[in-house]
Amino acid sequence: MLTGSSLHDERMRRFKTAGLYLVTSQPLSAGRTTLEIVRAALAGGVKLVQLREKEMTLREYAALAERVRDLTARAAALMIVNDHVDVALAVGADGVHLGQDDFPIPAARRLGPDLIVGASTHSVEEASRAQTEGASYINIGPIFPTGTKQWNGKFLGIEGLKRIAAVARIPFTVMGGIKREHVPELVCAGARTVALVTTVTAAPDPCRAVAELLATLREAARGGVSGKGSLLSD
Amino acid sequence: MLTGSSLHDERMRRFKTAGLYLVTSQPLSAGRTTLEIVRAALAGGVKLVQLREKEMTLREYAALAERVRDLTARAAALMIVNDHVDVALAVGADGVHLGQDDFPIPAARRLGPDLIVGASTHSVEEASRAQTEGASYINIGPIFPTGTKQWNGKFLGIEGLKRIAAVARIPFTVMGGIKREHVPELVCAGARTVALVTTVTAAPDPCRAVAELLATLREAARGGVSGKGSLLSD
Repeated sequence: MLTGSSLHDERMRRFKTAGLYLVTSQPLSAGRTTLEIVRAALAGGVKLVQLREKEMTLREYAALAERVRDLTARAAALMIVNDHVDVALAVGADGVHLGQDDFPIPAARRLGPDLIVGASTHSVEEASRAQTEGASYINIGPIFPTGTKQWNGKFLGIEGLKRIAAVARIPFTVMGGIKREHVPELVCAGARTVALVTTVTAAPDPCRAVAELLATLREAARGGVSGKGSLLSD
Repeated sequence: MLTGSSLHDERMRRFKTAGLYLVTSQPLSAGRTTLEIVRAALAGGVKLVQLREKEMTLREYAALAERVRDLTARAAALMIVNDHVDVALAVGADGVHLGQDDFPIPAARRLGPDLIVGASTHSVEEASRAQTEGASYINIGPIFPTGTKQWNGKFLGIEGLKRIAAVARIPFTVMGGIKREHVPELVCAGARTVALVTTVTAAPDPCRAVAELLATLREAARGGVSGKGSLLSD
């Protein structure tokens, strides 16, 4: 399936142990900039950041991506760029995340053999196709109702997550309305990487929110719940 | 300034003699698909096509770009992709065209040293900056009022075109509300490449519209008007 370069595989090793996946959104950051949120989240220990800003021009987005690349590199954190493969390549990001209507996965792999290529999936069919097309990981969502993104489909819930997770032969992340109190049931359902927007970006103290989420994830993993993949300290 | 590869320079040689520059827009194609318009325009003799479709998903755009690449390659026509450097690289396009809010010119040159990199400019300042940043050509516009694109600035007119053309040290194209009857005055103002959307895409017979425009361009050039660069048969 996936024939990644050794740099790709090394990046995926780090990806699998990150546990927490911060996805940015400046309009949902309570008046702060994404740069401020990323800085605080890195101080809190996050090791995986996706830059996703839908309301910027591409020129602004590319400039912000350069700064986020600097910050994440200094913190030894992975940086994924939403949607724009060209921006990911230009700033030397670790990966790109693609929605169902975005750039095609096979083309992204060809353009950037070292890039982690993630895909948003909302059903068993989409997950299977993304794997076949060569995705490095899939995101499964939205799990719970969320105001972050317009969504006309249904929310998967824990049962929907389990159905898709059952076909996942590559790492998966979970997203959509996830709060700290959901972490144990998500880990029980096999989730190893939890993606969040507002739980961090809109938190009064994003650094502390990250630190607490990471502690909760570690705790849940230590509980010895079953599931694929490895979490954090593995 | 510009340090293009030899493939880049060869592409620019062809660019400079194309004369007519078709810019696509499926919503402005009188119910026909962009693929149909491109096929007809190539039959009419166009040698320079920019794929610009703002109302498609990136996945649809990338798929269409592959087909347009096939058609243009078979007709020995250049293909430029609007806005998306990743799509241009993925389909092996000859170039990319970037607006003021789009991907940064220097980053595009680094990612694709063989690509023609065009830039939309609307003033002497923007034209100068695009040249400094390494653009292969600039587009100057909008020259005349047009319904094709929302535009809150003023229209340049022939005088505005001349002011910007005077600072152009690289090839330039002209765009915005251009009809066949404008060709002689544009050529007199130094224009050698005329970019058009609806004059071709909305024409009853796009093949014939292209053939007529090319004939008019040739005629105007033979008129021996002064101006930089070379036109068509040079």
